[in-house]
Amino acid sequence: MKGNKLFGSIEAGGTKFNCAAGLDPFNMVAQKTFPTTTPAQTLDRVIEFFHSVEREYGKIEAFGICSFGPVDLRIGSPTYGCITSTPKEAWQRTPIVQNLEAEFRVPIGFDTDVNGAALGEQRWGAGQGKDTILYITVGTGIGGGALVNGQPIHGLIHPEMGHLRIPCDHTRDPFPGSCPFHGDCLEGLASGTALKARWGKSAQELDPKHPAWDLEADYLGLGVVNIILTLSPEVVILGGGVMKVPTLIEKVRERVRSLLNDYVDSPLVKDRIESYIVFPALGDLAGIAGGFELARRVCAEGSDFHR
Amino acid sequence: MKGNKLFGSIEAGGTKFNCAAGLDPFNMVAQKTFPTTTPAQTLDRVIEFFHSVEREYGKIEAFGICSFGPVDLRIGSPTYGCITSTPKEAWQRTPIVQNLEAEFRVPIGFDTDVNGAALGEQRWGAGQGKDTILYITVGTGIGGGALVNGQPIHGLIHPEMGHLRIPCDHTRDPFPGSCPFHGDCLEGLASGTALKARWGKSAQELDPKHPAWDLEADYLGLGVVNIILTLSPEVVILGGGVMKVPTLIEKVRERVRSLLNDYVDSPLVKDRIESYIVFPALGDLAGIAGGFELARRVCAEGSDFHR
Repeated sequence: MKGNKLFGSIEAGGTKFNCAAGLDPFNMVAQKTFPTTTPAQTLDRVIEFFHSVEREYGKIEAFGICSFGPVDLRIGSPTYGCITSTPKEAWQRTPIVQNLEAEFRVPIGFDTDVNGAALGEQRWGAGQGKDTILYITVGTGIGGGALVNGQPIHGLIHPEMGHLRIPCDHTRDPFPGSCPFHGDCLEGLASGTALKARWGKSAQELDPKHPAWDLEADYLGLGVVNIILTLSPEVVILGGGVMKVPTLIEKVRERVRSLLNDYVDSPLVKDRIESYIVFPALGDLAGIAGGFELARRVCAEGSDFHR
Repeated sequence: MKGNKLFGSIEAGGTKFNCAAGLDPFNMVAQKTFPTTTPAQTLDRVIEFFHSVEREYGKIEAFGICSFGPVDLRIGSPTYGCITSTPKEAWQRTPIVQNLEAEFRVPIGFDTDVNGAALGEQRWGAGQGKDTILYITVGTGIGGGALVNGQPIHGLIHPEMGHLRIPCDHTRDPFPGSCPFHGDCLEGLASGTALKARWGKSAQELDPKHPAWDLEADYLGLGVVNIILTLSPEVVILGGGVMKVPTLIEKVRERVRSLLNDYVDSPLVKDRIESYIVFPALGDLAGIAGGFELARRVCAEGSDFHR
């Protein structure tokens, strides 16, 4: 690592904080995971971890944080760098960025977990060489992040693609949906939480041949189609625990192609959809990779990047 | 106009080509509209119009073309600058950009009609000061364009937001949808074509108190919500002939707020939705304004901008 920059990457999740230091996800000098408990306790552990890294390896030049949300990404906002209206009440308005900044006084890049994963996959994974990238995670919840012309989408807040409304035939699927805000939105119908509530078994417990998976593919296909028609991504990356169920991605590809019905006139969709809708090449490393890429970008652009 | 640059703007539509020359949409020296007939006849008239402008006002420095589509925006593609799979068969693979380029030998910016309208509204209209902008037109068809971080979305092809799948209760609305590709997609349910096919009357003929408009607002609200959750735009601009029906935009605002159910934590959505979902400030001038902005950008970036 001598002579190379040292970056800190934090993947801030609702159940655990994954912290790493190094040059990039393939050249890490230290890595540690902490459970997400109280904000004070969790951030103290994170800070102590990076101090111990600095004692051994020298100054960290920049940090990148990919966080669960919703988060405030609006530069200049009084709550910039905070988690905002999360159901985890103790974490509401926790100024993660400011805490790290006060302690280390270096540039800090900050984005959503899913925008971060899209950044990581662009730099080192399934999105290499592409500018417009969609990353969707299907786990306990459903989230989507995206790059357009190489930059993460922020806009008014940030994407909340898990909450799209999709067609649902309740005579076929009487389950009313599990989303506390919208009932039968995409997340309410197709997240791990919805699967468990509908079938009484988790995604891992359900047999891969269970009819649950045809229904799941129908819903995910509809959601992915809507996002393709809006963002026109060059690649669709599907990550998260639920997507690890055997053959689910094949079913989703088939649904997407059938629903688009040749309307999107690209050989990638029509003839090579297995190269268009793919798993994260970095697997579960996509988030921590996103933190490294955020750190690299904020360092290259100087300390005023995020303000 | 002395000393100012002279730009050419073309709004290429399926029924007419609107051509203008000047510095910007508020400083035009000439403007003319031609019906869309055969590609050869239409483009000959367009070219002759701009030659006559040059004879009177001097050299045109750059052109901007906002076109009906689908179009090929992929720089380096053999069909860059062409309309691709349009149902107007004579126009398929018509190289609009190459035709103009061969004739005038200046930089030419090229984009979809709706990305163009978004660009025009950003520069001179309802999107001023904003970076992430959604423009939707509801007319014979439904189309959506968008800027993210100030740049139009291209990606794999370009957005085709009119074809989103939305929930539809066919016991309430037995109309199967008018889209030849997808049946009851957004355009199939809520375009002017769908209105006419469902009710036997055009949008202009239907009484503004007809129940058609509650159904229309439900469908448009669902489409707009899905796009908001994907793109997180700072402003949603709703143009096109159907949107001119009195009170329709108010109904759509109400549906969007109700469907989002406070999930998007922004005062603009929660408390000031009348400033968030708006008409084009440029009205029917948005498209031609987009052409001027494309010309200005391609001129500022030099002739290699679009290649």
